[in-house]
Amino acid sequence: MARLQQAIDPDRLLTDPADCWAYGYDNSRRHVCPQAVAFPFNTEEVAGLVHACRELGLPLVGRGRGSGTAGAAVPIRRGLVISLERMDRIIEINADDRLAIVEAGVTNGDLQRALEREGFFWPPDPTSADYCSVGGNLACNAAGPRAVKYGTPRDNILGLTAVTGTGDIIRTGVHTTKGVVGYDLTRLMVGSEGTLGIITQATLKITPKPEARRTLRAVYTSMTTAAAAVSRIMAQPVTPCMLEFIDGRAIDMIRDYASVDLPEDAGAMLMIEVDGSLEQLAYSEQAVAEAARGDGLSELRTAASEDERQGLWAARKALSPAQRKIAPKKINEDVVVPVSRMADLIAGLDQLSRQYGIIIVNFGHAGNGNIHVNLLVDPDDPKQMAVVDECLQKVFQLVLDLRGTLSGEHGIGYDKRQFVGLEIEPASLALMKQIKKQFDPDGLLNPGKLFPDVVPD
Amino acid sequence: MARLQQAIDPDRLLTDPADCWAYGYDNSRRHVCPQAVAFPFNTEEVAGLVHACRELGLPLVGRGRGSGTAGAAVPIRRGLVISLERMDRIIEINADDRLAIVEAGVTNGDLQRALEREGFFWPPDPTSADYCSVGGNLACNAAGPRAVKYGTPRDNILGLTAVTGTGDIIRTGVHTTKGVVGYDLTRLMVGSEGTLGIITQATLKITPKPEARRTLRAVYTSMTTAAAAVSRIMAQPVTPCMLEFIDGRAIDMIRDYASVDLPEDAGAMLMIEVDGSLEQLAYSEQAVAEAARGDGLSELRTAASEDERQGLWAARKALSPAQRKIAPKKINEDVVVPVSRMADLIAGLDQLSRQYGIIIVNFGHAGNGNIHVNLLVDPDDPKQMAVVDECLQKVFQLVLDLRGTLSGEHGIGYDKRQFVGLEIEPASLALMKQIKKQFDPDGLLNPGKLFPDVVPD
Ligand SMILES: Cc1cc2nc3c(=O)[nH]c(=O)nc-3n(C[C@H](O)[C@H](O)[C@H](O)COP(=O)(O)OP(=O)(O)OC[C@H]3O[C@@H](n4cnc5c(N)ncnc54)[C@H](O)[C@@H]3O)c2cc1C
Ligand SMILES: Cc1cc2nc3c(=O)[nH]c(=O)nc-3n(C[C@H](O)[C@H](O)[C@H](O)COP(=O)(O)OP(=O)(O)OC[C@H]3O[C@@H](n4cnc5c(N)ncnc54)[C@H](O)[C@@H]3O)c2cc1C
Repeated sequence: MARLQQAIDPDRLLTDPADCWAYGYDNSRRHVCPQAVAFPFNTEEVAGLVHACRELGLPLVGRGRGSGTAGAAVPIRRGLVISLERMDRIIEINADDRLAIVEAGVTNGDLQRALEREGFFWPPDPTSADYCSVGGNLACNAAGPRAVKYGTPRDNILGLTAVTGTGDIIRTGVHTTKGVVGYDLTRLMVGSEGTLGIITQATLKITPKPEARRTLRAVYTSMTTAAAAVSRIMAQPVTPCMLEFIDGRAIDMIRDYASVDLPEDAGAMLMIEVDGSLEQLAYSEQAVAEAARGDGLSELRTAASEDERQGLWAARKALSPAQRKIAPKKINEDVVVPVSRMADLIAGLDQLSRQYGIIIVNFGHAGNGNIHVNLLVDPDDPKQMAVVDECLQKVFQLVLDLRGTLSGEHGIGYDKRQFVGLEIEPASLALMKQIKKQFDPDGLLNPGKLFPDVVPD
Repeated sequence: MARLQQAIDPDRLLTDPADCWAYGYDNSRRHVCPQAVAFPFNTEEVAGLVHACRELGLPLVGRGRGSGTAGAAVPIRRGLVISLERMDRIIEINADDRLAIVEAGVTNGDLQRALEREGFFWPPDPTSADYCSVGGNLACNAAGPRAVKYGTPRDNILGLTAVTGTGDIIRTGVHTTKGVVGYDLTRLMVGSEGTLGIITQATLKITPKPEARRTLRAVYTSMTTAAAAVSRIMAQPVTPCMLEFIDGRAIDMIRDYASVDLPEDAGAMLMIEVDGSLEQLAYSEQAVAEAARGDGLSELRTAASEDERQGLWAARKALSPAQRKIAPKKINEDVVVPVSRMADLIAGLDQLSRQYGIIIVNFGHAGNGNIHVNLLVDPDDPKQMAVVDECLQKVFQLVLDLRGTLSGEHGIGYDKRQFVGLEIEPASLALMKQIKKQFDPDGLLNPGKLFPDVVPD
């Protein structure tokens, strides 16, 4: 501790377990109390802390706001947590160059509000925007509904400053939308969940805010017909800025929980939004509505006012509380399949649900094929708990058979590390581990995450 | 040679220097004849060739169509050239999932034609489209005017198959627009100029083709006022699909070469295109025109027909032959600065031009701040040749001082490797070299490229 105190003002270093406690969990229900928590003010202080950890052989975990859902920020090997929460300055917003330079600890919400005043936004929009950090968004490549039109953090970053596991400060990327000098270390860091370095600053690509948006709600008799509509929508030039879905099981659940205004034969529902200038919106709405029409469409409604918009969203918004009521400890997966395979996935999940006796409810970002698969298990039911791992394994295998991927935004963290080998072949995995070793030769950065545990032979 | 013949059908292996000759150059005017050239049919054959090279300690260079301009494909250490030209199949075009799977050797032009039949396009549009390969586009992150709206290859790829320097086959990325499992090896390979692996196959993100486009030409009295207009255009929500510029010197040169219809006081010119649905184009055109208006605008014209469009483009198109006539051996740089610094760059270049007695003509992709800086040197003039290196160094320093980058699309290759250290700091450069070593422990893949030569101490 004395060594750590050399690296940072003792006022900004917690060591009492009671103080450190809250920095031991995230949204995964896991908890391990760190030995110390530091609150650096700048990149140099972060570098100093990493040097100290290196001398001490102390593991360290970079932390945004601990809102991750896969245990990525939980210090499972204890050691030091470096919280970025006091590095929350917005250094520059530059409308002419469409960029913003921020410290990693600023919350997504604070950034969005500052950008809005200049007529801009940063596309990544996780539901947790108000309490997650931009650094965490980058470390997880976290996204939300807008990704279908505007991309994920990877598509909306120009460069960053980070401290690697050797305590070196690196500046990657550029201040421009083009640049091909050297390897793309920026995007290598994005999505690396704090295992390659602590991101201290980022240069973000920002986008002018569209004038207005329109909302549509399309209800289909089956998931198959809804998925076909998603394909049609994505194959025409007007890309919606939001294309969300919920499946039939989710609709049933909402009905049980609240009285909602949905057709009797509803088997799946799409929420669609388009954005743009006022003059152009009518056409965009019409183009998307036309693509939404087809086999199985049972109702198509458009919101003409903000009130009507709220009305259309009401059914969708009832889903979270409905789920929480039935299964407060549900398992929430976050898989992705190509848009054209969504109906196959949902059908396969229905079958697994019957086979294992576990209710599975699906919803998510249809335009990206990013599906939140919710296994409504009851952890106190030993019968369910006996089969849930096997069921999950089957879910992932199904996803991969459909050319999908295990996670679209929540990441691997601690919870999903044993599944990584299902998706990534040994040769690529070996390369990733070797890359990790170059950034972090002593294995201090967020140990035990992202990679499958090596089974000793 | 016997060992190489085990790895590939001897019919598809050239060893006679006369046959190999044409595989020794690219568009950089450099030439080194390789010892052998192989034409694999598939990924496994590429892997077999790499294994053979590894056993033989033979350098190897992946080659698309040799259209690169920085000497990247020139086998400066001789060895084997692996030409991808017979791996030119389009394996799958999937409109529903907005993706195409292609072999690396397919030309950009062939791919675009195939996609067009399905109503799609792949955004990267280098002028060389008809004779460069998609693999080469990925290896260089090559782009063109459309990048301002639709991004570069990095933004338009989902995954790829490659053979590393160990002969391992890796499959990176996903088939979906989201995916956060493991490190982003895909974008690490993009722009790596064949130094990390031979790309054999790629899964590309494709985009529905807009219905129509409109063209505008805006002439300004000065580069400063034109650059301000570019900033205004980029700060509003309608992003043009093309925003090109030429500077005053270029206009003078065109005037000397051909009679063109441009205002007397023209000091810079923008070519602007917007695309979209027919219904929405009028508004987009108007929004962009409004942003284009302002201080220094001397003429704004719009093309109502394809004929008029050709008319507006005529002046811009006269630039290449005009330059070729004056300086057939010009030095063409490809720097990028933030859009708001373009006028400062051009002013600084004017000053360097006067200082060194070298005419400098500038044009390029204004929306990205990507400026083709053309030093019209005469290689037979010893006075110019004595100062050109110093002048170039000053150009690069100016660019970096303006927060720019040395190359937006042409890459480093052989020609610019000694300048890389100006932009990338030692810590990042060291990491890049270490990454390279993991992919290519024996240093066989395109040796002598991308990295500055190490000066032995
Ligand atoms: C209610 C709720 C809704 C959510 N909705 C979404 C959603 O819609 N979409 C989505 O993608 N996610 C969502 N999430 C998950 C989570 O909010 C995101 O992953 C977010 O990006 C995490 O940010 P954070 O600052 O809380 O990071 P943390 O949880 O603190 O950290 C997450 C990981 O990033 C690393 N990290 C954090 N900061 C840095 C840094 N500066 N440098 C290096 N590594 C760092 C940590 O080490 C850890 O590995 C949601 C979570 C909740 C609780
Ligand atoms: C007239 C002309 C106009 C041009 N216009 C543009 C332009 O507008 N924008 C632009 O960006 N560029 C432009 N270029 C440059 C060039 O065409 C591009 O860089 C193109 O992407 C190169 O493709 P290629 O197949 O010819 O690659 P090559 O020249 O054969 O190779 C280039 C580099 O990529 C590597 N490489 C090629 N294929 C593979 C593979 N399969 N796996 C791994 N490495 C590989 C090579 O080793 C080499 O390092 C132009 C060139 C010319 C001659």
